[in-house]
Amino acid sequence: MNERTLVKNLAALPAGPVTIAGWVETVRDQKKVQFVILRDESGAVQVVNPATRELDPEGVSVGAAEALATTEAISALSHGSFIRVTGELKHDERVKLGGLEVKLTSLEVVSEANPETPIAADSSLDKRMDWRFLDLRNPKQALIFRIQTTFLHALRGVWVEKGLIEIQTPKLMASASESRAELFEVDYFEGKAYLAQSPQFFKQMAQAAGFGGIFEVGPAFRADPSFTSRHATEFTSVDTEISWIDSHEDVMALHEELMVAGFQAVVDAHGAAIAEHFGIELQVPSRPFPRIPLAEAKQIVADRGYVVPRADADMDPEGERQISAYVKEAFGHDFVFLTDYASSIRPFYHMRHEGDPSLTNSYDLIYNGVEISTGAQREHRVDVLVEQAREKGMDPEELEFYLDFFRYGVPPHGGFGMGLARVLMLMLGESSIRETTYLFRGPTRLLP
Amino acid sequence: MNERTLVKNLAALPAGPVTIAGWVETVRDQKKVQFVILRDESGAVQVVNPATRELDPEGVSVGAAEALATTEAISALSHGSFIRVTGELKHDERVKLGGLEVKLTSLEVVSEANPETPIAADSSLDKRMDWRFLDLRNPKQALIFRIQTTFLHALRGVWVEKGLIEIQTPKLMASASESRAELFEVDYFEGKAYLAQSPQFFKQMAQAAGFGGIFEVGPAFRADPSFTSRHATEFTSVDTEISWIDSHEDVMALHEELMVAGFQAVVDAHGAAIAEHFGIELQVPSRPFPRIPLAEAKQIVADRGYVVPRADADMDPEGERQISAYVKEAFGHDFVFLTDYASSIRPFYHMRHEGDPSLTNSYDLIYNGVEISTGAQREHRVDVLVEQAREKGMDPEELEFYLDFFRYGVPPHGGFGMGLARVLMLMLGESSIRETTYLFRGPTRLLP
Repeated sequence: MNERTLVKNLAALPAGPVTIAGWVETVRDQKKVQFVILRDESGAVQVVNPATRELDPEGVSVGAAEALATTEAISALSHGSFIRVTGELKHDERVKLGGLEVKLTSLEVVSEANPETPIAADSSLDKRMDWRFLDLRNPKQALIFRIQTTFLHALRGVWVEKGLIEIQTPKLMASASESRAELFEVDYFEGKAYLAQSPQFFKQMAQAAGFGGIFEVGPAFRADPSFTSRHATEFTSVDTEISWIDSHEDVMALHEELMVAGFQAVVDAHGAAIAEHFGIELQVPSRPFPRIPLAEAKQIVADRGYVVPRADADMDPEGERQISAYVKEAFGHDFVFLTDYASSIRPFYHMRHEGDPSLTNSYDLIYNGVEISTGAQREHRVDVLVEQAREKGMDPEELEFYLDFFRYGVPPHGGFGMGLARVLMLMLGESSIRETTYLFRGPTRLLP
Repeated sequence: MNERTLVKNLAALPAGPVTIAGWVETVRDQKKVQFVILRDESGAVQVVNPATRELDPEGVSVGAAEALATTEAISALSHGSFIRVTGELKHDERVKLGGLEVKLTSLEVVSEANPETPIAADSSLDKRMDWRFLDLRNPKQALIFRIQTTFLHALRGVWVEKGLIEIQTPKLMASASESRAELFEVDYFEGKAYLAQSPQFFKQMAQAAGFGGIFEVGPAFRADPSFTSRHATEFTSVDTEISWIDSHEDVMALHEELMVAGFQAVVDAHGAAIAEHFGIELQVPSRPFPRIPLAEAKQIVADRGYVVPRADADMDPEGERQISAYVKEAFGHDFVFLTDYASSIRPFYHMRHEGDPSLTNSYDLIYNGVEISTGAQREHRVDVLVEQAREKGMDPEELEFYLDFFRYGVPPHGGFGMGLARVLMLMLGESSIRETTYLFRGPTRLLP
C-alpha cells in the first residue's frame, strides 16, 4: 500500500518529507507561487509551490523543465481531482489552515475530475442528492457518517457487553409484518414476496428460541408515498428485543442506557467537530429520561394552547414539538418517553395494561421534538394475541407462522425499533433525514 | 426487571437462595423426587424437588398443600415451557451437570408450551427449518449466533480502529448491480425497482466521495434458483472497500487482518464451546495466507488428477476442495487466496493487469474447500470502465449514475464482499448455510 500520511496526523510530525493524497479543494494560482488545498478523509492542508513560469533562455538549471511542468500541471488542476503530493512539511503558525504547509517536491495527478462542477454550496438539497458522491466530499456531510459509525459502535458495545446476540433477520417475507398498506411486493420466482417493514416478528422469534436478548441494525422498507422530512421508503432500523422483562419500563431502561453510551462516545470523539461544523454543543443526556403518559402529554400540550387536531388518541408532529419544548423548559431534557399509548393506535402485538385493555405497555421516544422510536412490551399469550389481531382486522390465518412462535412457550419480552437517520438528524440539527442517510430512497428517488 | 441469575453464573455463587428462569429441557418425574433440567441462553442446570404425592391424611403440616401443588405442577410441565424457579443453590460435585443443583422452593410457569413437539434431534434439516425457533433452542444452534456476534464485533473493531466509516447502502436500486439474470424486481409505486445483489456500486461511491475506507454488513439478494448448500436468495454480505491501494494485494492484507482478528476473538470467547459442541479445535489462521494464481491452482489440481470440467477459466466446487486439500497438505493452512482470475470470468468493474488485460487484479478467498469471498482492485479510469462494461454486453447508458462516480475523480481502490453464513458454516464444519443462517431464504422457502 502506498504510504501516505493522513492530513490529521501531519501536525504531530516533525518538519521533513511527507507524502499525502486526497482531492483538490481549491487552487490559488498566483504568478510567483501556487497554493493547492488538498483534502483527504481526515482534513485539509495547504500545499505550496513556487511557480516556474518559463524556462530561463540560458536554460541550464537542472530540473527547470520539470519545475515548469509541475507549475503547468498545478495551473491545469481541476477542482476535485485526486492527487498524490510528496513534499516537505513545514510548521508555520502564520498559515491559517492548521499552522502548517507542505512545500511540493512532486505531484501525481491520480484521477482527473471533469472540470465542470455540477453542485455548489448553495445547491438545492435535491440537486445535492443527485450528486451525492460530490456532496459527501463536504467535510460536514462526511462527518455525519463518522458520527453514525461511532454511535452504532457504542451501541453494539453495550449489547455485546450484555451478552445479547446479533441477528440478521430476512427482509424477504411471505406476508406483512406491519400494515398491508405500505408493503412492497416482490416477484419471487413463481410467487410473491414482501419486503420487511420491520424485523418485528423475527426479533420476537429469537425470544421464543430462548436467545434472551438480541439486536439488529438493518434496512426496513415502507411503501410510504409521503414526502416529509422524516419519511423514507427504505431506512436503517436499530432494533433490540429482550426477554424476562416486567414491563415496557425495562425496555426504556435499556433504551436510555444505549442512548447515553452512544451520545457519550459521539461527544468524546466528535464533540469539537460537531461544534465547528454544526454549531452545536452536544450534551450527553442524563438518566432517567423524563416519562410522561401520552394522555397527560396531550393535556400539557393543550394547556399550552395546542389542541392536537386528531380524532384518535395519538399525538401529531406539532404536539411532539410542543411536548418536547415543555420538557426542555420543565426538566432541561432533550428526550422524553411518552408512555401508555392507547390500544386503538398501537399494533396488535403490543401488550395491554393488566386491568385496562384500552392502554398499552408501550412508549415513543421523542428527541428534540420528533419521534425517533417506538418500544413496547409484547403480548406473549397466544390466545390474547389472536384476539388482538382479530380486533385489528387482521387475519390470524395469515399470521400462523408468527403465532406458532408463542405456542411452544415464550418468556415475557419487549423491545424497540429506532430510526437511525432521525437520531442523527435531530442530534445535528439537520432539517431532513435526506441529510443523514447515505443514499436516500423516496417515492420518486431511486438514484444514484 | 425481574432479577434472575444466568445459569452460567451459578457456579461462582455461594450456596444460598437464587432465582433462575428459562425453559424446561427435560423432566424426570420419579416417585420420591423430581428433576427438571432448566435451560436458559447461557446454560442448563438441574432443579430438584422432593415430591409430595398426597396430603398427609392427618393433614396439618403447614405448606403441605402448596408442596403438593408444586409437585403436580412439575409433573404436568411440558417440554419447552418457560418457567421461573426460586430455590437454594447447592454445590455438589456428584451432579453431572456442572456440579450444582437448585433445590426448588417456588415455581412459576410463565408460558406453557404445546406438549406435542414437532421436531426431534433426528428431524430432517428441512423440518427443523420449519420450526426454526425450536431448533434454535438447541444450544449448539444458538452457539452459532453467539459466535457470529463475536466474529462481527471483532471485524468492526478492526474497521473502527482504522478509521473506516460504516455505511448503510440502499437495497432498492434503479438497475442491476451485478448480472441481470438473478435480479429480484419490486413494484415501486408507478414503476419498478430492483433488490441490490451487492453493495458494489455504493461502496465504490464512498471512494469517489473521499471517505477513504468503508464497511458494511447487510443483506444482499440473488434470484438464484439453485438449491445447493452454499446458495440463498438472501444472505448477509460482509463488505469493505478502501482507497489508495496499489493492487488487490492491499485488499488481501486487510482481509487477512480481519479474519485473524475475527478468529482470535472467536477462539478466545468460544474455543471450548466449539470443541464441545462441534468437535473442532478451532485455530487462529497464521498470516500471510497462501496465495496461488488461479491458473497455477488449476494446474496443481490437474496434477492431483482432477481436471476442472469447465470450458472457461474458472474453478468449480470440486477444484476448490482439491486446492484447499493441497494447501492444507503443503502449508498446513485452511485458507488460500486464489488470485489473478481471468477477465473473462470477472465482472466489468475489476481492474485488469497492466500489460495483460486477460487477467484481473482480483482474488477469491477459499476456506476449507469453499469460496467465501471475492475481492479485487476496481477499475477507476472511466474510459476503461466503459470499455469493459461494453465488452461484457452491458449497456453503459444504464450505468450512467455509476459511471458518474468516476468522472469527478476517484482514487485507486478495492475491496471484497464475503458471505457471512459460509464463513460460519466452514468454521464449524456444518454441511449447509441453512444451519448458519438465522432464517434461510431459498426459492421455495419464505417461511417462517
